[in-house]
Amino acid sequence: MSDKPTIAVIGGTGAEGSGLAFRLAHAGHAVVIGSRDAAKAQATAAELNAALGTDAVRGARSDEAAAEASIVLLTVPYAAQQATALDLKDQLRGKILVDATVPLVPPKVGRVQLPEGGSAVAQLQLLLGDEVKVVAAFQNVSAHHLKDLGHSIDCDVLVCADDVAAAETVIGLAKAIGLSAYYAGPVANSAAVEALTSVLITINRRHKVAGSGIRITGLG
Amino acid sequence: MSDKPTIAVIGGTGAEGSGLAFRLAHAGHAVVIGSRDAAKAQATAAELNAALGTDAVRGARSDEAAAEASIVLLTVPYAAQQATALDLKDQLRGKILVDATVPLVPPKVGRVQLPEGGSAVAQLQLLLGDEVKVVAAFQNVSAHHLKDLGHSIDCDVLVCADDVAAAETVIGLAKAIGLSAYYAGPVANSAAVEALTSVLITINRRHKVAGSGIRITGLG
Repeated sequence: MSDKPTIAVIGGTGAEGSGLAFRLAHAGHAVVIGSRDAAKAQATAAELNAALGTDAVRGARSDEAAAEASIVLLTVPYAAQQATALDLKDQLRGKILVDATVPLVPPKVGRVQLPEGGSAVAQLQLLLGDEVKVVAAFQNVSAHHLKDLGHSIDCDVLVCADDVAAAETVIGLAKAIGLSAYYAGPVANSAAVEALTSVLITINRRHKVAGSGIRITGLG
Repeated sequence: MSDKPTIAVIGGTGAEGSGLAFRLAHAGHAVVIGSRDAAKAQATAAELNAALGTDAVRGARSDEAAAEASIVLLTVPYAAQQATALDLKDQLRGKILVDATVPLVPPKVGRVQLPEGGSAVAQLQLLLGDEVKVVAAFQNVSAHHLKDLGHSIDCDVLVCADDVAAAETVIGLAKAIGLSAYYAGPVANSAAVEALTSVLITINRRHKVAGSGIRITGLG
């Protein structure tokens, strides 16, 4: 048994979620991919295990995945974010929910279109209440880079949460997968980080790259 | 006579404005510092000329400064942004207004507090109408670094404007003072860049640095 926490990745069959699951399993965490469809989750888990040469990744229905984990990552599309998280409210109680949701509004995903209140993740913290420690993170990290262990990921992680200790735990997770991560303020500040994703999409298109990112500078 | 455009810096007696004026004059632009108080503008101009060993910088009342320039930078505090710009509407007609305003709400300047519509600069574009080409830029560049020519400025400039050609002109200005600059989408996208300043202030405080910044990565 590892002393590293088991992590559920809800929406882990998608590009961003499976990429994070891949990196976390590679770093030694037990990972449970969660999906509405358990068979789909198990298929993704099998692919990741094959790529990693381990059995660290399992697949399960989302509620089972969330129940087993002590930290839950949410990587579903914006349109499914609130319903998915609210369905898991019982399983999330007392845990850290790491929300990577970006409120992109297709088709104009390169245009900042702020959700009600400015931040999709802050809105979710309001809906879930204080029993769930919501931490916004990983919104700017390109799925393109996560999937290839040969890629060093040239993107820092800005971590926003009202609970600073929960944010520090997530900063630790980011560091475990080789990323620099910084506490970026209360969950309200996630508005900046979420919106920045549309800026990066604009830059990707103009510069014909797959995954631009950001680095924090000036830290001496 | 230089063929480089004359640039007015309204609010150029402040830290950010005088820093940008300093760098622009150093790059060979004629610069007119604009202030409500012409004597104060002239005093700042004299200081900058003394530091640069030139006479490239002049000071004038804001309306006179804006009238003389073909590109106008606005670097006043958020509380004064709209009134200052609307007072200069006649002088700004047909010109590029580069707005570096960040909608910080003291005392919690490290907390993202989005203005109406999400972006202070987008709101100003609405108020000024299409006759003024509003370009959001320089919000994340620390005044601390601008004032010291010995400092290379380790911060990229994200440039947002509805008029892409106007954005390209401002990207050229940023490059002239040694900064990398990227078109970051329509002026609505300035919401991300403005809000990011509160994130950088949070990082400055936690890491006890004077001017953190950002770099865009992954451009190959």
